[in-house]
Amino acid sequence: MSRKITLYDTTLRDGTQAEDVNFTVPDKVRIAEKLIDFGIDYIEGGWPGSNPRDIEFFQAIKKSKVPLEHIAAFGSTRRAKKSCDDDEILQALLQAGVPTLTIFGKTWDLHVTEALKISLEQNLEIIYDTVQYLKKRVDTVFYDAEHFFDGYKANSEYAIKTLKAAIEGGADCLVLCDTNGGTMPDELVEIIEAVKKEVGDYPLGIHSHNDGDCAVANTCLAVKHGIVHVQGTINGYGERCGNANLCSVIPNLQLKYGYECVSSDQLKKLKEISRFVNELGNLKHNIHQPYVGRSAFAHKGGVHVSAILKNPKTYEHIKPELVGNKQRVLLSDLSGKSNLIYKAKDFGLDIDPKDERLTQLLQQLKELENKGFQYEGAEASFELLIRKAMGTFQKFFDLLSFRVIDEKRSALEPPFAEATVMLRVGGEIEHTAAIGNGPVNALDNALRKALERFYPNLKTVRLVDYKVRILTGKDGTKALTRVLIESKDDKDTWGTVGVAHNIIDASYQALVDSIEYKLFKDAYK
Amino acid sequence: MSRKITLYDTTLRDGTQAEDVNFTVPDKVRIAEKLIDFGIDYIEGGWPGSNPRDIEFFQAIKKSKVPLEHIAAFGSTRRAKKSCDDDEILQALLQAGVPTLTIFGKTWDLHVTEALKISLEQNLEIIYDTVQYLKKRVDTVFYDAEHFFDGYKANSEYAIKTLKAAIEGGADCLVLCDTNGGTMPDELVEIIEAVKKEVGDYPLGIHSHNDGDCAVANTCLAVKHGIVHVQGTINGYGERCGNANLCSVIPNLQLKYGYECVSSDQLKKLKEISRFVNELGNLKHNIHQPYVGRSAFAHKGGVHVSAILKNPKTYEHIKPELVGNKQRVLLSDLSGKSNLIYKAKDFGLDIDPKDERLTQLLQQLKELENKGFQYEGAEASFELLIRKAMGTFQKFFDLLSFRVIDEKRSALEPPFAEATVMLRVGGEIEHTAAIGNGPVNALDNALRKALERFYPNLKTVRLVDYKVRILTGKDGTKALTRVLIESKDDKDTWGTVGVAHNIIDASYQALVDSIEYKLFKDAYK
Repeated sequence: MSRKITLYDTTLRDGTQAEDVNFTVPDKVRIAEKLIDFGIDYIEGGWPGSNPRDIEFFQAIKKSKVPLEHIAAFGSTRRAKKSCDDDEILQALLQAGVPTLTIFGKTWDLHVTEALKISLEQNLEIIYDTVQYLKKRVDTVFYDAEHFFDGYKANSEYAIKTLKAAIEGGADCLVLCDTNGGTMPDELVEIIEAVKKEVGDYPLGIHSHNDGDCAVANTCLAVKHGIVHVQGTINGYGERCGNANLCSVIPNLQLKYGYECVSSDQLKKLKEISRFVNELGNLKHNIHQPYVGRSAFAHKGGVHVSAILKNPKTYEHIKPELVGNKQRVLLSDLSGKSNLIYKAKDFGLDIDPKDERLTQLLQQLKELENKGFQYEGAEASFELLIRKAMGTFQKFFDLLSFRVIDEKRSALEPPFAEATVMLRVGGEIEHTAAIGNGPVNALDNALRKALERFYPNLKTVRLVDYKVRILTGKDGTKALTRVLIESKDDKDTWGTVGVAHNIIDASYQALVDSIEYKLFKDAYK
Repeated sequence: MSRKITLYDTTLRDGTQAEDVNFTVPDKVRIAEKLIDFGIDYIEGGWPGSNPRDIEFFQAIKKSKVPLEHIAAFGSTRRAKKSCDDDEILQALLQAGVPTLTIFGKTWDLHVTEALKISLEQNLEIIYDTVQYLKKRVDTVFYDAEHFFDGYKANSEYAIKTLKAAIEGGADCLVLCDTNGGTMPDELVEIIEAVKKEVGDYPLGIHSHNDGDCAVANTCLAVKHGIVHVQGTINGYGERCGNANLCSVIPNLQLKYGYECVSSDQLKKLKEISRFVNELGNLKHNIHQPYVGRSAFAHKGGVHVSAILKNPKTYEHIKPELVGNKQRVLLSDLSGKSNLIYKAKDFGLDIDPKDERLTQLLQQLKELENKGFQYEGAEASFELLIRKAMGTFQKFFDLLSFRVIDEKRSALEPPFAEATVMLRVGGEIEHTAAIGNGPVNALDNALRKALERFYPNLKTVRLVDYKVRILTGKDGTKALTRVLIESKDDKDTWGTVGVAHNIIDASYQALVDSIEYKLFKDAYK
C-alpha cells in the first residue's frame, strides 16, 4: 500500500485560469519555493509563449533557491502545418530552459475535426512527433491527454490510439485529463480499468476538474485504481469550478489510503500552505474547507461537544494536528466556568476557579450573548472583556462625545460625511474632526486622528475587514446590527465586535476595542 | 434508470450547525416555501426541544402555505432511563405536530459504551422501542443510523443489528450516515453492498458529510448502488466542512445518471435557490460552486473561448441553462439583448428588439453590475431600472437634500440619530425631520413623514428585512456597501437594492426604490 505517488502542482498555471486568481511573478516564485519545501514533486510554472508573465517566471525561478528539476513548463502539441523546428510554441517551451515539459494533445475526435479541423490520423502524427522531438531535448516529457474521458466515451478506439502515439514518442507518463470536469466517479474508474488493459503498466496520471463536484473523489479513486501521478492545485484553484484540491487529495491519499506523498512533518504544514497561497492570491480562506479550514474541526452542537471532550474520535475523522489544524469548541457553547478558565489560559491569564469575579463575568457574558454579541472571529474583544472583568486592563482614553453628520446636497452627488470626536487622554481633552467615505469611515478617521498624537504606534494599524450583519430581520431598518472588524499591524491580526441598534454605535464599539487591544498588547504583551 | 429518488433537505437543521449560518424563524419559513416549490420532498425543520427557535418554527410553518406532509422534525432516540411516554425529547417531537419524524440512533459500539455508557443490548432495545413508539403515532419515521460507516468498520455485526432493530420497529427508511465525513468512496460502496446483503431491498438512505471532500461523490455513488433517499443541504451548509451539497447532487443524479429528482422546469431554478438561501443566510456566493456559481460556465483561456464559440460542448459538461446558469466569456461580455427582453416580459413590458434604448440599457446594466449591483432578491429595483430606461416610469418626487446626524453625548448613553429631508413633490417643497433608532431608520422615518401627506398609501408599507453586505473586504470601513431591503404591504412583498461606499447612501437608494415601486404599482398595475 505504500506506493509512492508523484505530486504535480499546477496552481501557478491552471490555477491562474480561475476568474479571481492572479499572481505577480515574485508571488509565483514564493509559492514555488513554499511548495517544494512542502514536498511537491513538480511545479507547473506556466505556458511560456502564451503570455509575457509566464516567460518572466521561468527567468525568475532560475535565480531562486528552487532546484530546476522540480519545475515544469506547459504547452500544446505542434501546429498542424508546422514542423517541430519551426513551431513557436515548442521553441518557446524549450527556451524556458527547464528539464520537464508537459504537452497536451487532443483525445476527443470532436475536437480534432471541429476545433483543429484536421484528420484523425494527422492528430496522431502530431502527438507522436511532438513528444519524440521534445523527449530528445529534455529529461522528462509528460503527456496530458486533454478531454480523455469525454473522448473515450465518444470514440474509445481513437482515444486509445492517441495514448499509444504518445507512448511511441517516449512520453514518461500519460496523464488522463477530465478537462470538462463532468465525469462521474464510477465512469472514471471503469475507463481507467479499460485503459490499463490497453497500455499495461505504463505510468498513468490524473488531472481532474470539479464541475461535477467530484474532483477530489475522482483523483483519489484513480490512485486506488493504479494511477501514480496526480495533478491538482492548492485550494482547488482553477478555471470554472476549479481543479482537484491538493489540500484534500494529499491527506486523503496519505492518511486514508496509506500512500506515500509527503513526509508527516511536511503534512503538518498543510494548513499553512493553504493559507499562504490564499494570502498571496488575496482570497478569503474558506472556513469550511476540508482538513485546513478554521471550522474543519469546530464543534457547535451540545451533543457533539460533550462527546468530543470524552473522546475526539467520536466526531473527528482524523487528528487535526496531522494537517496542522486544531480542534475548536465554539465560544457560544462555552457556558461553564471550566471552559472560561481554559480559554483565559490561551490569553496567558490564570484565573482562580473560586474567584468571585468569575461568576460575574459568566453572568455578563450571558447577557452580552443575549444581546447578540458573539466572539467567533472577535477574540480580541473577548480577551478585553475577560481582562476588564478580572481587573487586568488599564484604560487608555475616555470618550466624551462624538457626532457624525452625513449630508446629501443633491440627488446626483454622493453625500458628504464628517465626524467629530471629543476624548479625554490622560489629563488632556482632545477635540477633533475628520471626513470619510461614509459615516463609519469618518468616525474611524477622527478617532485615529485624535489618538495618534498620544499613541503613534496606532499608525501601523490597518482595518482589513469590516462586516455588518443584521440580527433580526423582521424590524427593517430598526433591526439590531452586529459589526465585526478585523485589524492588522506589522505583527498580528485581531478581530473585534460591536452590537447595537444603531450601526454607528456598533461600529464605534468594534473600533474602540480594536484600538484598545492594539494599545494593550503593545504596552503589556 | 428513471428510478425516483426522495430528496430530504436538512439546510434548516444540520445546515444551521455551520459556524456561520444562522436563520431567523421567518427566514426558515421562506426557505421551506422556496424548497417545496423547487421539488424537495422533505424538509427537516429542526430539533424541537433542543432550542426555542426550533419550536417556534414548527408553529410558524403551520401558518405558511407549505403542506405539512413535507415537513420533518428531527430528534434522538429515547434516553436509556426513561420510557418513551416520559421522555421529553420524544414528547417534544410529537408536539411539533408534523407527520414525519427522523430519529437518530447509535451504530458505533464506541459511542454506545463511551458516550451513552450503556450496554450494546440496551442500545438495540432503545432503537426498536423508539421507532415502534413513534411509528404508532405518526405516518412516517425515518431512522438515521449515526456514524454508520465508522461503526460498521469497527464492528460490522453490531452495526447491522442496529439497522435490524429499526426495521423491527417499523422504520420507513434506514439512512446510513457518514457522520464524521471521512469515509472514502470505495469503502462506502463496499459497505453499502454488504448492507444490502443483510437487509435485502429495504429502503436505504444516505447522509454524507464533506470532511474528506467526497460528500457529493459519496452521495451519488450511494444512489448508483441502490440508495433511494438522499439527505443534504443547499450549498452544502453544515457542521465543520458541511453536508452533501444538494445543488451538486441533484443535477449530477438527474443530468448525469438520469434519475428522477425534480422536474426539468424546477431544475432551472437551481441557481436561484442557491443564491436565495445564501442571501437569507447573509453569506457570500461561491463563484466557483459547481453548476450554480458565477464562474461555473465562465471561460477565460483563449483556446477555450474560441472552441466554445464553435461548439459549447467542447468545454462545458452540461448546458448551463438546464440549471438556470449561463455561459460567460470573460474577455468580452456577450450578454444578450434577448435575455433582457425576455426578463422585461415578466414585468408585462414588451420591448422591440430594435429599440435603441435597449442598447443604452444594456450598457447601463453592465456599469451597474461592475459597481456591485445585483438584482437577485431585488427584482423591484430591476423593474424600475428597465421602466426608467424605456420611458415607462413617472417620477413621484425629487430629492433636494438630506442630512443625518448621529450624536453620542457620553460613553454610557446610546447615540441620538436625527434626519432631515427636503423633497419636491409636484409643485410643493416638503422639508421635515425625524428621529430613529439609528441613522438609516431616522432617514427612513423622515422620508415617509415627508411623503405620506401626498401619498397616504405609503402607510401600509412595512420594511420586513434590511441586509448589509460589504463587497470588498480588504479596505476596512472604506469598503463598498450593498444594501438589500425587503418591503411589504397588504398585498405584495418586493425587494430593492442600493450600492455605495457610504452605507447611508446605499440605504437611501434602496429605500427610495422601495417607495417608488410601491407608488408605481398602486397607480399603474
